[in-house]
Amino acid sequence: MKTYLDCLPCFMNQALRAGRVATNDEKKIKKLLDEIGMLIGKIPMEHTPPETGAIIYRRVSEITGNADPYREIKEKNISQALSLYPELKKKVAESNDRLLTALRLAVAGNIIDLGVGKEFNIRDDVEKTLHQKFAICDYELFKQELNKAKEILYIGDNSGEAVFDKILIEELGKKVTFVVREIPIINDITIKEAKLIGIDKIAKVISSGTTAPGTILDICNDDFLKIFVNADMIISKGQGNYEGLSGTDIPIFFILKAKCSVIADNIGVQENDIVLKGINL
Amino acid sequence: MKTYLDCLPCFMNQALRAGRVATNDEKKIKKLLDEIGMLIGKIPMEHTPPETGAIIYRRVSEITGNADPYREIKEKNISQALSLYPELKKKVAESNDRLLTALRLAVAGNIIDLGVGKEFNIRDDVEKTLHQKFAICDYELFKQELNKAKEILYIGDNSGEAVFDKILIEELGKKVTFVVREIPIINDITIKEAKLIGIDKIAKVISSGTTAPGTILDICNDDFLKIFVNADMIISKGQGNYEGLSGTDIPIFFILKAKCSVIADNIGVQENDIVLKGINL
Repeated sequence: MKTYLDCLPCFMNQALRAGRVATNDEKKIKKLLDEIGMLIGKIPMEHTPPETGAIIYRRVSEITGNADPYREIKEKNISQALSLYPELKKKVAESNDRLLTALRLAVAGNIIDLGVGKEFNIRDDVEKTLHQKFAICDYELFKQELNKAKEILYIGDNSGEAVFDKILIEELGKKVTFVVREIPIINDITIKEAKLIGIDKIAKVISSGTTAPGTILDICNDDFLKIFVNADMIISKGQGNYEGLSGTDIPIFFILKAKCSVIADNIGVQENDIVLKGINL
Repeated sequence: MKTYLDCLPCFMNQALRAGRVATNDEKKIKKLLDEIGMLIGKIPMEHTPPETGAIIYRRVSEITGNADPYREIKEKNISQALSLYPELKKKVAESNDRLLTALRLAVAGNIIDLGVGKEFNIRDDVEKTLHQKFAICDYELFKQELNKAKEILYIGDNSGEAVFDKILIEELGKKVTFVVREIPIINDITIKEAKLIGIDKIAKVISSGTTAPGTILDICNDDFLKIFVNADMIISKGQGNYEGLSGTDIPIFFILKAKCSVIADNIGVQENDIVLKGINL
């Protein structure tokens, strides 16, 4: 997905939010905003937004000296999500369609996104999402592809969200490779958080090599690219990965909640809609 | 009021909104955003936000070639507000406290603000505001000063809002000088719209000389400054005028709805609170 005009003020908003999480030093945050302001005119609009995100969040870390500003928040989100895990598993077990319920939970987990700046309440939002109608629901296609696939490549997004991904992975009943970011960026999942959640116990965990808040193929490592190109089936979670991967010609299922109007418009849904969308299939 | 860190992304948002109102040419809007991005690092944080607003909206007009982008919207807002005028007058006539009801209507009118980017519905929001509790209500002080004053200096804000100001002016029962902006800026009122509403029939209408979306004393004309310094009583409407004038040592009554968190924090109220606040009294 290309960069839209609306993304430009949003980059400034993201820098301010991340700067505030990383430091209390207003001068450092001012320096950060000044720099991102200067960057605006240099952003190629044909680049995907997470490519600019990579620059912004790197500067947040460099200017504030805080390499992982969201560490505590990630741990809190994971702990909250893990505390819900037993009852979520029960919801799946008691449902008429275990896979669909697990898919809904995977979407629900996507509310734990600290890049967007919306308030969320994990428990309430999960409950809402379990009863929300999908704006796009390629579920039949998803089941067909899942039946055919031997292995699934599952591209993770936020840290707390991955607790919900774990539940979906457990329902897929296939060998899964779970993909994380190379470095801490916003509250996105890295190998560290994947291990904290225990995803390494049920899937092979690899880094895509991306240092952006989304999967940017140009900066991914060769090992990931090889698996990506040859995968039986790919599941991609969240907005950042959609922004990075929606322009590829590889078949992918995107699972996400459209949390900003630009992405909603790009997908052809309304803001706050939930989506299970397959492309290139 | 000084510029806060939150104002910096907001300047970009304002530029995008105003650019879109002024033109459909995305390249021009991109150029505008690039320039405002470059400007961010040069903004003195001790300046008031409308001082930067003046630069932004001037560039909107220069880059898009549209000197009054909000003209049609202003006319529509005024027409909507004028259609409510008879029933608003009736509300005042039927109320227990005519002046307080007119003050409430003047606050209600302050929702017609196109710089903030919030949706509004004039009729519904007026009804809500008529029943909303003031977060700060210096009404007794207001009445005392009004009784003592021979003449009132009334600093207007948005165009449609001025229909509501007209009702308050009619209830003040004093000689009133109504102050407008020097040039079209966002949907703020100029002499043209004041005449359209008929404010010139019940008050003397003057321009402060300000070319900003708020009263910036440094750029106001001498005639206004003379009246401002010697006024018996000053009523200032809206956020822009509060931002420009809250640092002065002249007694002023501010009437506004706090539509952004920065201004709400600065005043010591919550976002969306309504305020009648006297300073330096």
